[in-house]
Parts: sequence; C-alpha cells; structure tokens
Amino acid sequence: MVTPRVVESQIRVRYAETDAEGVVYYANHFVYMEVGRVNYLRALGLNRAFWDRAGWGIVIVEASCRYHAPAHFDELLTVRAWIENVRRSSFAFSYEIVNAENGRLLAEGRTVQVFVDLSTMRPIRLPPEVRDILAAAATGGDSE
Amino acid sequence: MVTPRVVESQIRVRYAETDAEGVVYYANHFVYMEVGRVNYLRALGLNRAFWDRAGWGIVIVEASCRYHAPAHFDELLTVRAWIENVRRSSFAFSYEIVNAENGRLLAEGRTVQVFVDLSTMRPIRLPPEVRDILAAAATGGDSE
Amino acid sequence: MVTPRVVESQIRVRYAETDAEGVVYYANHFVYMEVGRVNYLRALGLNRAFWDRAGWGIVIVEASCRYHAPAHFDELLTVRAWIENVRRSSFAFSYEIVNAENGRLLAEGRTVQVFVDLSTMRPIRLPPEVRDILAAAATGGDSE
Amino acid sequence: MVTPRVVESQIRVRYAETDAEGVVYYANHFVYMEVGRVNYLRALGLNRAFWDRAGWGIVIVEASCRYHAPAHFDELLTVRAWIENVRRSSFAFSYEIVNAENGRLLAEGRTVQVFVDLSTMRPIRLPPEVRDILAAAATGGDSE
Repeated sequence: MVTPRVVESQIRVRYAETDAEGVVYYANHFVYMEVGRVNYLRALGLNRAFWDRAGWGIVIVEASCRYHAPAHFDELLTVRAWIENVRRSSFAFSYEIVNAENGRLLAEGRTVQVFVDLSTMRPIRLPPEVRDILAAAATGGDSE
Repeated sequence: MVTPRVVESQIRVRYAETDAEGVVYYANHFVYMEVGRVNYLRALGLNRAFWDRAGWGIVIVEASCRYHAPAHFDELLTVRAWIENVRRSSFAFSYEIVNAENGRLLAEGRTVQVFVDLSTMRPIRLPPEVRDILAAAATGGDSE
Repeated sequence: MVTPRVVESQIRVRYAETDAEGVVYYANHFVYMEVGRVNYLRALGLNRAFWDRAGWGIVIVEASCRYHAPAHFDELLTVRAWIENVRRSSFAFSYEIVNAENGRLLAEGRTVQVFVDLSTMRPIRLPPEVRDILAAAATGGDSE
Repeated sequence: MVTPRVVESQIRVRYAETDAEGVVYYANHFVYMEVGRVNYLRALGLNRAFWDRAGWGIVIVEASCRYHAPAHFDELLTVRAWIENVRRSSFAFSYEIVNAENGRLLAEGRTVQVFVDLSTMRPIRLPPEVRDILAAAATGGDSE
C-alpha cells in the first residue's frame, strides 16, 4: 500500500481572513492550501530559489474545497498536504485543514497544477528531475 | 428545454487581486463568484435586507473552479451566474468568468450553499418561499 | 482659490471585505483607495496601456487612513479622490470614502506615490508630460 | 529612559499577498501589523478568550505606513510591535517590518485603537485593568 509523504503547516487564523458571519471566508481556505503547498514543495527542495533559477512557475488549473466546519479568528490550524498524483504535465495536491488543537476536520481541498515556462507563461512537460522528486513524494518514498 | 435565468455582473480587476505572476491570484476567482452570487440573489429580491429580516444566512459547503486563461490587472470581467439545482436544504450556483471585451472564457466555477439559521448557525431546510424563487430562477421561469 | 479635480468611484462592499466584527476590515480601505486612484489616473489618460507602453510604474511610499464610521456588507460606497500635490519625484492623493446613499463620511485617506522605472524598479523624476497632467488636475485645470 | 516592551512576530510572505509588480501589495502591510498586534496583546494575556469574556472589542481609528523597501514572496519577515502611548479611551501601536534574514527595514507603521463595547459597538474608556497592563507594557515594566 502506498502512503504518500505528508507535510503539515501551522496557520494562525488572522482577523483579516474572517467575514461578517464570524468565520473564515471561504476563499481564504485556498490561501491556506497555498501555504501548505509551498511548504510541501520547499520540503522537497523545490523552493523559491529553485523556481527562480529554473525559470519555471506553477499555475493552478483546478481548485476545489469541501467545507465541513468553520474556522474562527485566532484558532490554530494545521494544513496537511500530500501529492495525489503526478502526470506528464500536471500534478495534483490534496489537503486537509484541521483544527490543530482538537483535530477536527474543517475542510478538504484539492488543486491541480501545471508547470509553465515563465518566459512564455506556456505549460511545459514536467522536467524529469522534478517529476522524479514529486513522484517519490507521492508514493512516500524518498527521491535521494 | 430548460434555460436557467442568468445574471451578469461586471468586475474590473484590482491590483490587489493580482499576484507576482502578473495575473489574478487563484483564490480571488471565488471572490468574483461571490459578487456574481450576491448580485444574482439581489435580482431575485433576496438582498441583504431580506436576509437580515429573516435571520437566515448562506454557508458555502462546496466550491470549485477550473481556470482556462489568466485575468490581468484592469481588465473588465463579466461573471455569469445561474442556479444549477435546488435541493431540500441546499442549492448550487454555476459561474462563468469571461473577459468582458473579447468574450474569452477565463474560468468556470461552482458553489453549493446551505441555508443556516443565523441564531444557531445550523443548517435548515430551504424555506418554501425561498425555494420557490430559486427553483423558478433555475428553470428560467418567473416566480411571480 | 484652487479646487482640484475630483473623480468619484462607486464600490459595492463585498462579503470578502468584511471581518468578524461585521464591518469592512481596516486594510481594505486601502484597496478602495486603489480603486479610486486607478480610476482617477484612467480619467487623466494614464491608464494601464499608458503605463505598459512607458515602462513606468507607481510605488506607494506612504499610506494613511482615519476611520470615522464602519462600512458594512453590500453598502454602496463612493470613493472621492483628488491630487493633493505634485513634487519632483512624487505626488499625493487624498481620498474620502463615503456611504453613497446617505453621504456619511466613513474614512479619509492619503497616499504618496513615486514613479519607478519598471526595468530597474528605481524611482525616477516625474516625466514632464505626466507631471503637467497631474499638476493640472491638482489645480482643477485641464491639461489640454 | 523608557524602553517599551517589544514583541516580535515572524511572517512568511504568501503568494496571495504579492501583486503584479512582484512585491507585497501595500494594503497587506496592515494585515502584517494585525498579526504583530494580536501576538502582542496575547503576550499580555489579552487574547481572544479575554475579549470574548469581557464583551469588548478593538476598533482601529487611525492607521498609517511608510514603505522603505519591498517585501517579496517567500521572504521571512519580522514584525516588531510596541505600545507607543495609552490614553483615556485609546492607545497606539508602532510597528517595524523588517526582513528577518538581513534585518533590512521594509516598513514602519502605526495604528490607533479604541475600545468598544461589542454589544453597542460604541467606544468606552479603557477599563482600568486593561489600561494598567497596556501602560506597563508601554513603559517596559511588568504589570504583575
């Protein structure tokens, strides 16, 4: 059985992220996913310096979220991120956002990303060295 | 054949909504959907005064977006919104975000909402008068 | 007496812009000022195409706001913007944010901007043709 | 000589917070100040549970920022916050936002807050126990 590598990020809910119903506004869960995604990629060595050097960027082509319970101001959240699959020119992240103190599941999300050449902003096939790193993480292995 | 009522909203992209890749950040499309959704409901008479009076609110339980092309600063967008279906305690909106000048499809979205009693924040069945209005709009009819 | 040219922009408050106290979050007034500022400059012919062609950008170096009364979801606001002064390498905007229906003053703001060369991101002196346009607007005249 | 107590918060710049010029959008510095302010008050025991119990809230009446250098995606920032003064019904925070790695000063900010009774949303005089805590922090002392 394959257990993908999971990277967890902690986020403290900001007042800026709440709305007039007293809970985190629904679009901000996608910002939390970004935090989880960026930390995940950094953990694999795919940090900002890597992207800048390579001239590649990531563009989201699909994003979705199912909301189970609201998050509130000042709560500490954990974003659990893992790579769901890696294809020729795209890969998918899955996410769980939970209350870090009681473990309650607040939301489940998913994003699909493509690689782009930043000079043209056009999609490119995943470069082999990146593909190997992502594929290893998706299957819980270690690329080194 | 059923053609749902469509309500269009115009949005000018703000600099605040762009990101370092020079395009609208992916979470902000969900804000644009909110604009489309609120204008839609206002067109049905379900405006803020209605909600305040009734003590009801709307909570998003699912949201998704497929991104086809980027939006840029200062572009004028049209959000087309329509009601996809109405169920006992929830209803779904679909959206298209297009460039208002050349009609290019930039993104397609969908949200599912439940009704909540704002005093308890718990879901309730759609009140009949609201259900009728939404159902009429979903089928392109007129509730009056 | 000098009466600067004023440009008004209408903004409908989004749910995304409110916070858990039920009012517009304080940082979002600066986004509203952006809307007023961009519309102002567009009215002077200094639109996005102008900036792109020239290779110039505007960078905010100071921003401030005094909050008099809260803005709420779905309220229609008017942002009144005018140019307060024009210096060698910077110029200042003043803003009033009012409730568009009852005219109540909600906030007063101010920003100071410098011109930058986008290729170097370094400040430059205001180009004469831009300076003339801004100075004319600041004194209520017409640059043509 | 009085040295006020300073509380530092670390913030990693999110992609969501950048704009098309590749730097943090100017309104987001006020969100960073919020993070610094909330952490400061939490360090004094004035956390969310305290506010909820007391039925008090804080409303910003003035906010300003001077921008010295841009912040970029993924940079680690430090927000240094301290209480500048405490008056009968308001108090002021000052902030410095610096690059956490090289110490470069990016922005200086200031906010003035009033206390409100959340049931009426009207300003109230600072309750003595809160005033003492804030005043002690403003002078670097310890309220206990």
